[in-house]
Amino acid sequence: MTSIDDLPIRDDLRGREPYGAPQLDVPVRLNTNENPYPPSPELVKALGEAVAEVAGSLNRYPDRDATELRADLAGFLNADTPGAGLTADRVWAANGSNEIIQQILQAFGGAGRTALGFEPSYSMHPIITRVTGTAWVNAQRDEDFGLDPERAVAAIEEHRPDVVFLTSPNNPTGTALPLEAVEAVLAAAPGMVVVDEAYGEFRREDTLSALELLEEHPRLIVTRTMSKAFAMAGTRLGYLAADPAVIGALLLVRLPYHLSAVTQAVARTALAYSGELLGSVETLRRERDLLVGWLRGQGFEVADSDANFALFGRFADRSAVWRAMLERGVLVREVGPPQWLRVTIGTSEEMAAFRAALKESV
Amino acid sequence: MTSIDDLPIRDDLRGREPYGAPQLDVPVRLNTNENPYPPSPELVKALGEAVAEVAGSLNRYPDRDATELRADLAGFLNADTPGAGLTADRVWAANGSNEIIQQILQAFGGAGRTALGFEPSYSMHPIITRVTGTAWVNAQRDEDFGLDPERAVAAIEEHRPDVVFLTSPNNPTGTALPLEAVEAVLAAAPGMVVVDEAYGEFRREDTLSALELLEEHPRLIVTRTMSKAFAMAGTRLGYLAADPAVIGALLLVRLPYHLSAVTQAVARTALAYSGELLGSVETLRRERDLLVGWLRGQGFEVADSDANFALFGRFADRSAVWRAMLERGVLVREVGPPQWLRVTIGTSEEMAAFRAALKESV
Repeated sequence: MTSIDDLPIRDDLRGREPYGAPQLDVPVRLNTNENPYPPSPELVKALGEAVAEVAGSLNRYPDRDATELRADLAGFLNADTPGAGLTADRVWAANGSNEIIQQILQAFGGAGRTALGFEPSYSMHPIITRVTGTAWVNAQRDEDFGLDPERAVAAIEEHRPDVVFLTSPNNPTGTALPLEAVEAVLAAAPGMVVVDEAYGEFRREDTLSALELLEEHPRLIVTRTMSKAFAMAGTRLGYLAADPAVIGALLLVRLPYHLSAVTQAVARTALAYSGELLGSVETLRRERDLLVGWLRGQGFEVADSDANFALFGRFADRSAVWRAMLERGVLVREVGPPQWLRVTIGTSEEMAAFRAALKESV
Repeated sequence: MTSIDDLPIRDDLRGREPYGAPQLDVPVRLNTNENPYPPSPELVKALGEAVAEVAGSLNRYPDRDATELRADLAGFLNADTPGAGLTADRVWAANGSNEIIQQILQAFGGAGRTALGFEPSYSMHPIITRVTGTAWVNAQRDEDFGLDPERAVAAIEEHRPDVVFLTSPNNPTGTALPLEAVEAVLAAAPGMVVVDEAYGEFRREDTLSALELLEEHPRLIVTRTMSKAFAMAGTRLGYLAADPAVIGALLLVRLPYHLSAVTQAVARTALAYSGELLGSVETLRRERDLLVGWLRGQGFEVADSDANFALFGRFADRSAVWRAMLERGVLVREVGPPQWLRVTIGTSEEMAAFRAALKESV
C-alpha cells in the first residue's frame, strides 16, 4: 500500500495533518460558530425554486464575474455600514472566505513574500498562507487579546510583511479592534492589509466596521462571509470589499467560473431574505451577553466578545473539560491559547445544556 | 484612481490579462465546449427538490469530505470503465476541474518545482501552474497533435518535471492518447502524472481511458468533470481518481468545506440521472463525426476528435473568419495553433447554422 510519504509531495507538507474540527454527531454542537437557526420554511421553498429556475440552463457556464450577486452583496454592506457607498465593482465573492483569503495570497503573496498575523487568531490564515508558498510571521496580540497600535506597528516595521491579517472580531477570542488600530496598521504596512470580519455582523453597538476606512485606503481589504450571521455555512459564500484595482488583481488569479450558477442563485435568494436571516443576530447577541455574564458570575475569565462565540477559561487541563462536556452531549472547541475553550452561541436551550454540562465538567 | 500597477501584486502577475473566453450573448454559442442539451424538466424538478431538502440545514457546514458524492462518482467511473474498481477513497471532488488541478499543484508543485505539458493543450494548465508558484515547461505535441512516446520521454528526461500534464482527449485538438503513450510517460516521469480526461466520455469506441492504469500506478491521477458530457457546466463539479495516498495528500491543501452542501446535492442528483445526461453523448459523437466528414469534404484540415469539438483550419487570418462568423450569430473559439479555429459540437440545428456561416465567412 502506498502512503503519503511515498509520494513526491512538497517537502513543507510532509508530516502535516489535515485541518479540521471534528465533525461529530452530538445533540449540542457549539464548536464551529455556526448559526443555530436554520432557514425558515419560506426561505427553504424560495431556495428550491431559485435553483429550479437556474437548473434549466446548468449545461451552460455561470456568469464568470457574478455581477448580480456582487451588486446584491454591495447593497447588503451599505445597509450594514451606512455611508460605505459600495458598488458591485468594489465587491468580490468566492466559495467561502477561505477561497477569498487564498486568492488574496495568490495575488499579493507567494514565494519570497511574507504574511503576518497577530495570534491567537483564525488558524486558517497561516495554513492558507503556507499553501500558497508565502512565509508566515506570527506576531502576538496583547495579554487581553487586544492589539496595541504601537506594538502592532513595531511588528510590521520589523518584518515588513506583504500582507497583514487583522481579524475583527477576532476568532477565537471575540475581540474587536478599534478603527484606530486598523488605521495605524494601514499607515505602517508596506503591502496589503486584510481585515477579516467574518463575525462583523455580531459586533456590539459601538464597534465600527473597517468598511468605514475603505474609501481612503486602496490597500485595505475587508472580508466577510455568509456562513455566520447569514446562517449559510452550507452554501460556502465568502466575499470582500476593496478598491476596484484590488478586484482587478484578483481576476488574474481566480479560477475561471469559480462560483457556480447554483451558488450564485442560492446566495442571492438568501440576501433577499436578509431581514429574516439577520433577525437571529439580535437574538444571538443577547444570548452571548447573557452567557458572558453567567460565565463571569461562575468565576470564569471570559474575553470580551463582539462575535457569536465566547472564549473562556482558564483550565489546567482543557482537554479533560472538553471530553467531559462531550460525554454530556455538548461539543465545544479546543482552540486558541492552551488554557481556554471556545463556545459558539446557540439557542437558549442549547446554552442551558451548555451551562449544565459545564458545571458538571469542571 | 488606483490602478493594478499601483498595488503590491506579485511581480510575475504584472501586465497579465485575466483568462476568459468572451461571454457573448449570440444565437449559436459554440465556443466553450458546453453540452447544448439542457437538463430535462424532470431533472430540473429533482434538482430543485434536492436543494430544498438540504436547504433546511444550510446553517450547518457541509460534509467536509463529500463522502456520499465521492461514492456516487466512483460508481459512475466504474460504469464508464468496467474493471476500474474504484471506491470513494480513490475519488476526490472540487469546484470544477480547475480547482482539482490547483489542489494537485499545491500538493505536488510549488516554488522550486516544475510542471510540464505538451502544447497545444488546455490553456489553464500553465495558468494554474504559475498561480501556484510552480514553473511551467512547455513541451510540444507532434505535428498531427499526437504524442510520440519516445519524444515525450525525451522531454521528461530533459526537464525532470514534478508534475506532467497529459490531456486526452486533448483540448483544443480533440486528439486522444493511446495508453502506451501514458504508460511510457509514467515509466519516465519522476513525479506525478495527471491525465486530464475532461472530455473522456466522448471518446470513440476503441479509445481507452487512463482509468485502466490506476491500479498499477500510485503516481497517476485521472481528472474528469461534470461540465461537458454531464451537461453541468453551471454546477462546477470536477473530480479525480487516484491512489488513496494521493487523496490524503490533497487533504493537506484543500480549503476546508470547499464543496458546498448545495453543490454536493446537485451533483448527486445529476449522477442519479446519468442515463439521461449521458444520452446526449451518443448524439454529440454522431454529430461530431458528421461534422468532421463535412469539413474535410469542404477541403478543410480537421484534427481527429475524441471530444465534443473539432479543430479545423487552416486560415491565413483566423481572426477575420472568427469575426465574420460572429456577425452571422455563430460564436466559435480562437484558440490553439494560429491558423486553426475550434468549434464545439452543438445541436443539429446549431451545426447547420455553423456550416452556413462558415461557407459565407471564408
